[in-house]
Amino acid sequence: MNSDQLKALLEGVKNGTVDIDHAFKEIKALPYEDLGFAKIDHHRSIRVGYPEVVYCEGKTSSQIVEIIKRLMEKNNNILATRASKEDFAEVSKVIPDAEYHEIARIIVVRRKEIIVTEKQIAVITAGTSDIPVAEEAAITAEVLGNRVNRIYDVGVAGIHRLLSKMDTISQANVIIVVAGMEGALASVVGGLVDKPVIAVPTSVGYGANFGGLSALLTMLNSCASGIGVVNIDNGFGAGYLASNINKL
Amino acid sequence: MNSDQLKALLEGVKNGTVDIDHAFKEIKALPYEDLGFAKIDHHRSIRVGYPEVVYCEGKTSSQIVEIIKRLMEKNNNILATRASKEDFAEVSKVIPDAEYHEIARIIVVRRKEIIVTEKQIAVITAGTSDIPVAEEAAITAEVLGNRVNRIYDVGVAGIHRLLSKMDTISQANVIIVVAGMEGALASVVGGLVDKPVIAVPTSVGYGANFGGLSALLTMLNSCASGIGVVNIDNGFGAGYLASNINKL
Amino acid sequence: MNSDQLKALLEGVKNGTVDIDHAFKEIKALPYEDLGFAKIDHHRSIRVGYPEVVYCEGKTSSQIVEIIKRLMEKNNNILATRASKEDFAEVSKVIPDAEYHEIARIIVVRRKEIIVTEKQIAVITAGTSDIPVAEEAAITAEVLGNRVNRIYDVGVAGIHRLLSKMDTISQANVIIVVAGMEGALASVVGGLVDKPVIAVPTSVGYGANFGGLSALLTMLNSCASGIGVVNIDNGFGAGYLASNINKL
Amino acid sequence: MNSDQLKALLEGVKNGTVDIDHAFKEIKALPYEDLGFAKIDHHRSIRVGYPEVVYCEGKTSSQIVEIIKRLMEKNNNILATRASKEDFAEVSKVIPDAEYHEIARIIVVRRKEIIVTEKQIAVITAGTSDIPVAEEAAITAEVLGNRVNRIYDVGVAGIHRLLSKMDTISQANVIIVVAGMEGALASVVGGLVDKPVIAVPTSVGYGANFGGLSALLTMLNSCASGIGVVNIDNGFGAGYLASNINKL
Amino acid sequence: MNSDQLKALLEGVKNGTVDIDHAFKEIKALPYEDLGFAKIDHHRSIRVGYPEVVYCEGKTSSQIVEIIKRLMEKNNNILATRASKEDFAEVSKVIPDAEYHEIARIIVVRRKEIIVTEKQIAVITAGTSDIPVAEEAAITAEVLGNRVNRIYDVGVAGIHRLLSKMDTISQANVIIVVAGMEGALASVVGGLVDKPVIAVPTSVGYGANFGGLSALLTMLNSCASGIGVVNIDNGFGAGYLASNINKL
Amino acid sequence: MNSDQLKALLEGVKNGTVDIDHAFKEIKALPYEDLGFAKIDHHRSIRVGYPEVVYCEGKTSSQIVEIIKRLMEKNNNILATRASKEDFAEVSKVIPDAEYHEIARIIVVRRKEIIVTEKQIAVITAGTSDIPVAEEAAITAEVLGNRVNRIYDVGVAGIHRLLSKMDTISQANVIIVVAGMEGALASVVGGLVDKPVIAVPTSVGYGANFGGLSALLTMLNSCASGIGVVNIDNGFGAGYLASNINKL
Amino acid sequence: MNSDQLKALLEGVKNGTVDIDHAFKEIKALPYEDLGFAKIDHHRSIRVGYPEVVYCEGKTSSQIVEIIKRLMEKNNNILATRASKEDFAEVSKVIPDAEYHEIARIIVVRRKEIIVTEKQIAVITAGTSDIPVAEEAAITAEVLGNRVNRIYDVGVAGIHRLLSKMDTISQANVIIVVAGMEGALASVVGGLVDKPVIAVPTSVGYGANFGGLSALLTMLNSCASGIGVVNIDNGFGAGYLASNINKL
Amino acid sequence: MNSDQLKALLEGVKNGTVDIDHAFKEIKALPYEDLGFAKIDHHRSIRVGYPEVVYCEGKTSSQIVEIIKRLMEKNNNILATRASKEDFAEVSKVIPDAEYHEIARIIVVRRKEIIVTEKQIAVITAGTSDIPVAEEAAITAEVLGNRVNRIYDVGVAGIHRLLSKMDTISQANVIIVVAGMEGALASVVGGLVDKPVIAVPTSVGYGANFGGLSALLTMLNSCASGIGVVNIDNGFGAGYLASNINKL
Repeated sequence: MNSDQLKALLEGVKNGTVDIDHAFKEIKALPYEDLGFAKIDHHRSIRVGYPEVVYCEGKTSSQIVEIIKRLMEKNNNILATRASKEDFAEVSKVIPDAEYHEIARIIVVRRKEIIVTEKQIAVITAGTSDIPVAEEAAITAEVLGNRVNRIYDVGVAGIHRLLSKMDTISQANVIIVVAGMEGALASVVGGLVDKPVIAVPTSVGYGANFGGLSALLTMLNSCASGIGVVNIDNGFGAGYLASNINKL
Repeated sequence: MNSDQLKALLEGVKNGTVDIDHAFKEIKALPYEDLGFAKIDHHRSIRVGYPEVVYCEGKTSSQIVEIIKRLMEKNNNILATRASKEDFAEVSKVIPDAEYHEIARIIVVRRKEIIVTEKQIAVITAGTSDIPVAEEAAITAEVLGNRVNRIYDVGVAGIHRLLSKMDTISQANVIIVVAGMEGALASVVGGLVDKPVIAVPTSVGYGANFGGLSALLTMLNSCASGIGVVNIDNGFGAGYLASNINKL
Repeated sequence: MNSDQLKALLEGVKNGTVDIDHAFKEIKALPYEDLGFAKIDHHRSIRVGYPEVVYCEGKTSSQIVEIIKRLMEKNNNILATRASKEDFAEVSKVIPDAEYHEIARIIVVRRKEIIVTEKQIAVITAGTSDIPVAEEAAITAEVLGNRVNRIYDVGVAGIHRLLSKMDTISQANVIIVVAGMEGALASVVGGLVDKPVIAVPTSVGYGANFGGLSALLTMLNSCASGIGVVNIDNGFGAGYLASNINKL
Repeated sequence: MNSDQLKALLEGVKNGTVDIDHAFKEIKALPYEDLGFAKIDHHRSIRVGYPEVVYCEGKTSSQIVEIIKRLMEKNNNILATRASKEDFAEVSKVIPDAEYHEIARIIVVRRKEIIVTEKQIAVITAGTSDIPVAEEAAITAEVLGNRVNRIYDVGVAGIHRLLSKMDTISQANVIIVVAGMEGALASVVGGLVDKPVIAVPTSVGYGANFGGLSALLTMLNSCASGIGVVNIDNGFGAGYLASNINKL
Repeated sequence: MNSDQLKALLEGVKNGTVDIDHAFKEIKALPYEDLGFAKIDHHRSIRVGYPEVVYCEGKTSSQIVEIIKRLMEKNNNILATRASKEDFAEVSKVIPDAEYHEIARIIVVRRKEIIVTEKQIAVITAGTSDIPVAEEAAITAEVLGNRVNRIYDVGVAGIHRLLSKMDTISQANVIIVVAGMEGALASVVGGLVDKPVIAVPTSVGYGANFGGLSALLTMLNSCASGIGVVNIDNGFGAGYLASNINKL
Repeated sequence: MNSDQLKALLEGVKNGTVDIDHAFKEIKALPYEDLGFAKIDHHRSIRVGYPEVVYCEGKTSSQIVEIIKRLMEKNNNILATRASKEDFAEVSKVIPDAEYHEIARIIVVRRKEIIVTEKQIAVITAGTSDIPVAEEAAITAEVLGNRVNRIYDVGVAGIHRLLSKMDTISQANVIIVVAGMEGALASVVGGLVDKPVIAVPTSVGYGANFGGLSALLTMLNSCASGIGVVNIDNGFGAGYLASNINKL
Repeated sequence: MNSDQLKALLEGVKNGTVDIDHAFKEIKALPYEDLGFAKIDHHRSIRVGYPEVVYCEGKTSSQIVEIIKRLMEKNNNILATRASKEDFAEVSKVIPDAEYHEIARIIVVRRKEIIVTEKQIAVITAGTSDIPVAEEAAITAEVLGNRVNRIYDVGVAGIHRLLSKMDTISQANVIIVVAGMEGALASVVGGLVDKPVIAVPTSVGYGANFGGLSALLTMLNSCASGIGVVNIDNGFGAGYLASNINKL
Repeated sequence: MNSDQLKALLEGVKNGTVDIDHAFKEIKALPYEDLGFAKIDHHRSIRVGYPEVVYCEGKTSSQIVEIIKRLMEKNNNILATRASKEDFAEVSKVIPDAEYHEIARIIVVRRKEIIVTEKQIAVITAGTSDIPVAEEAAITAEVLGNRVNRIYDVGVAGIHRLLSKMDTISQANVIIVVAGMEGALASVVGGLVDKPVIAVPTSVGYGANFGGLSALLTMLNSCASGIGVVNIDNGFGAGYLASNINKL
């Protein structure tokens, strides 16, 4: 309920077209069902085409199917992350046109057209093992309506690989850097561009990597300014944040 | 050296107005002094008014004075972070018009006009003890040319304080959330807005807070999407990243 | 043996109705078998209907059957936590009326009537993945004789979901908050109620969650007062403590 | 604003005694200023005599004086924790009847009578070095209107000391156990009583104690059920939670 | 080679019955093969009956068989720890009289008589889940020639269980305390006896137990004096150390 | 009270020489004041000459004086650890014959003769910086009545220094190894002797030493068997445990 | 492009044999494709015979085959680390003369002759379980053209085993020490030689070993100087670094 | 004693010029005083000019003076690390020609000529705050007789600074990289050179840097091969290891 609607309601009370009990119930529900700034509502009413998101890890295939079926009643796009091949097999039985991005482990169902930005997001990885997380970020950003440019396997151990791609990278509006092991790529990229950099540490590595902790600390302690860090392997979060920035 | 300049140089070689030794030296220096995408050069030549930054922690007052004096030869604005009162006393002896933001612990020297954005950055804190870090972020963003809106002491233990400010917060283009203790404010704000959120964990707290680790982990693991995290107490980094986003 | 019984025994010795050897043995056993404050004894003699508890994790199905059979000789109610489907299959062979709460992974055997409190315990979760731990708490509390009110999936990323349930939550006598990821729900609830809050961090999450450590630290460092924390995923402990509080 | 007041307001709109603009403003402020379940308001209006709390650590003496002076305008009791002797010296200059509990580091200002419960809270410590944290808990509970029974220096290295006090301990309604080093006291007490136990790890110890981490982990992992843990050295939190429980 | 043997060798050189090349070789080997204090040699020559030890974890069954066969050439007793049932099946094919202690996961081969001490070692556990580690300690101590007294499931959550066994425990010369979860048993026992206590933390537990870390820290920080700690789950190490102490 | 005394008491009740009230009181006090296995009582009644121990860290000089004065009423020896020079200055004012061991930071007051064992304890350090902790162990062991042999600065970086002392070390009954940095000395010594080894990690070191954690982990993970570990810098604990072993 | 080539290019421009557009393109590519110090290029052009390296962990067998096939187009030697038996089976189908070093888990393809150094690298292990990591280091060093001397199972728990091999060890130019558990071998070896020591912690061990962390910390904190540490289980890295040193 | 000397001794025994008691004593001392491979002896006898090293941290100025005076009796060079200005003031009173390197915190006393290598060691830092640790490494290497080339403040946030120095860096034989914060410089340098790289993490940084842990993990997990890591802030260790490598 917006301000105009509230005033109209009160007018209705005043001139007798709305009875007090009805107005009382509407107003009592105000703070919760219609706050205005509440995110999910906003999505549904304003930004048509924004997808519903399902996080599949820890859910059974049949639970996922059930959730997706329920969400589709709104006839919205759907983005299901961390979905296994088995999950997709079940989903495609009931939604034959569902797409599966295997490397990213993402299921996409399209019902509304996605309007794509002019400005692009660059997604960069240090190695080839970081690609699944990068793809999760890239597909997420694309389904949210962003143009994405992938630049993979440009880790700092061969700095010339990165430098030869700087022209392309500089043209992006937001840059997502995905790196495991020591995660140094974020610092080098952060030192070369003036755009917002989102760093995603990955759990790629072994020994004293501690499941991505090494890359995470590296990125948090970066000597380059202008870097925001998301959780280990959280490609979805990076894609979502990059989209929020790119759409400003 | 840009493409046109390189072509002109080669023309000069061809038509004999540039001798080979001179051209050889210019070209040899190419990758380092004139890469084009190199940040510091870019600042100097393109974005007039961007400040030089000095990180004062671990430096003596006289070292800071020396650095600032050298930087001022470029007649640029200067932002010196983590500066103590003593540092400022020394700096103001040689630069009488230097300003000191005591809570933020920042020295500012203005030599070029700062052009301020229309779009604003909101800086939010959970408690009053988080204000110094928030001020470091706010002053940084302001000196970088951003309009800043401060909303302090709206931590989640009294959620109505935050809710009553959501109108104002929603108007910002980028939101910086500064919180210590358990750092839950970032998740709540992230759930209420669709704008990029930069979360700054602070070392405020005691016991199993472990110097800000608790708030850091909370923010990285946020159940709300669209949050980028910077290092503990890194107000400068948050302000810098927010400015990069706000100026897109 | 209470004071009166001890005095009676000594009288017996004095007047010869009790021989010394018998008195000697009774007294020797005093500190251990009959201290009065010893918990298990107390249960058996005073609080009829209180269940015997079996922790199944790390035990084979046949060991669990053996233990339950032995405990049933006392004809008491039984609560077996962390029981797998296989465990239950074996138990139900010998105790056909045993119940299995699959999500909570709890086996219940009822032999004595459970008298239920008027006052209720609210069990709240941040997400759907936290429900198994919440159910362990809820079933535990119910078998211990408490009325339980479940409010699930009201995490802080959509604060209006929580706010719309505050009326119900406020009516509870004790509140159990179950949350993984960043665990911020405990702080928000703790700030909204004046009742004792028991926080249960769960291992739900990934990346820098570190198996529930993130939520645990969040809850210990909560900016809201009046929160007691139990171990990660320890639904049983939370239900047990809530029951102790609710029955005061 | 409660239901009756809202209905009256709408009646006023209907019969013209309240104009629409006024009603609009009142209703717009509803969710924030008058939610009903909001804690601080509740305190002020319902539970007269409940103190205002000030956390002094990290604040200067003059800041503390300023805050206390402002709070006293409500003519309420005040509880200022983590206050140094110097803080108290400054406070007593402007509030001559302020009390200082030196070991607990708490300043108390009494303006409203504190009504004390019949049921008592027992506060137990393992060693003498744990007493300051215990006193913070005890004084907090007393100022909140609870009868407190102190039993200090009954650590498990001399188990008979604890056992000889079990009679007294068993009479309490809630038990706060304060222990550093290995924190084993919580488990032993938890095994001997059926009442809610609140465990407070302290930073007392050295070496692999890691500032209280050892005791914290011990308490979280207790083999005894029915124990809620608060943050390291958080005597205030324990006293507050115990009071919430004791007043049910 | 002892002093007398060295002197005899030199006499032989002097009087010509030993040629210089032979003496040279013998002496060159001195520091390594015959240091006197070297442990393994000492075992072989002095303490007949002491077993050879094989640590099976991470070795294949056939490797274990090979090692045991080679060791048996010395016709000594053998103690193989962390041996699986499969390992034992293979070993018993070639050594039919090998014994398997399934709970302790130890294979024993007896070839020399084990002379058993008068003085005994007590092995105590907090719970039933700690028994495998306790048995590893107990069997190790027995094969090393010690009388062992097992007292299991006397954890501190029911302190009277422990107290009722103190008579027996006090008669031991050395006490091994095996406990997981919070590990508080070591402190309580350490406070009740004047004998050396060896504490073995176990990885039994969950949540913030961190694979035994909680119990390890508890034991290292014990408020009781006179406790030596071995590694998590290291029953063998505890049995070995206890034997070294018991045989003094 | 032992069995005979209890039977005698009951006989007294039977034949009327002891009245029931007196017997009642004696028996009621049984479990706590006279359990037989209780440590402190045992000290007082049986092992005359055993010292009272005071842990001075965190206590003021005047508190220490007060405690020592009270303990001296029993006319016993006193061992005060972690005592500063200032503490000693205050103590010596009231007890002029108190001794101060400055390096060990121990105050000793002698009132009963200390009977010294024949068998000796060796105390070994890796470096000179480990000596304060070693001296705390050595003085503690001496005051408890043990002969102590100090072998300092024989760390593994110069293994020949250690080997040249093995003759002496091998003669000890118990060996205390004190080492910081990487703590490897414990493993090497443990591999060279068949006696119980007590390892004391020290906080000596820097960088990734983490206040002694490195040495602690090294010692717990020792590839040599027969090593018991005490807390970081806990010289007193090592001396106490070594004494308990040496006196068996 | 080296200096002479650049000068020749410019001469060509000057005298018209090179047109400007061609020169422009060559120079533009300079910093990336021909920096001179770039590693991979350097390998190819200068050090013929140096292998291409493939890290197999986390890749499927078919991916590995694909990568190796592509690399073989350069007709170079190939070193594939962390390769499983299954990986090798697939590789040998297309490259029948590929070798598999099973313990080291390395596949080697030889196409160019390996010239072997005179000076040797010693590879030492503490136990037999450390051999796989040691073999990874040894095979790596051999394929890189180094003579390798293996000395296995000389851990510090039996110091005489190590000492008896010191003659051989001293002859090496570089020494790789591979050790798990407490990792003390690096310190002892570092104290006995004046050559560079590379320490490789292994994840061998259990309990508070924390996956190799214990050995890692030991090696970093070594009291012996001249030790460089690589990541846990990183045999390849140690072999590579040792080769770089040995070839100076 | 070498082989020839031992044979000569035995000859002497044979032909009667050496009596048996004398030979016995010489041989008995063999393993310890004259092992041949023992480091310190080797230094003294073979490598004249090698300095004696004193680690000053944790020692008083007078202790340092005492140690240096004793060492000077051998008339050797001396290198005292972690020496404060006050330490130097005391040392220079008794050794007027002692030098003090203030930034490196090193005292040098020269008594023997230092012969300097042709091949040089490069010492690189990421920032200016890393210089003290770098200087400790550089001075150490110089006093050990190495030519050192310092390249400071070339961190990866401005990669062109590093690239412009690669010519110089490539000429070094060994490269020491000193970096705090995220420590990414080691990876980038390691990817650009084929020489051994020694990485020194520094404690420079704040927040989640955890005293250098972040840089340490980065360096251990480097995606570039050929990097050996020393302890946090351990400039001396890096200089010593680099010298050992450079002198091969």
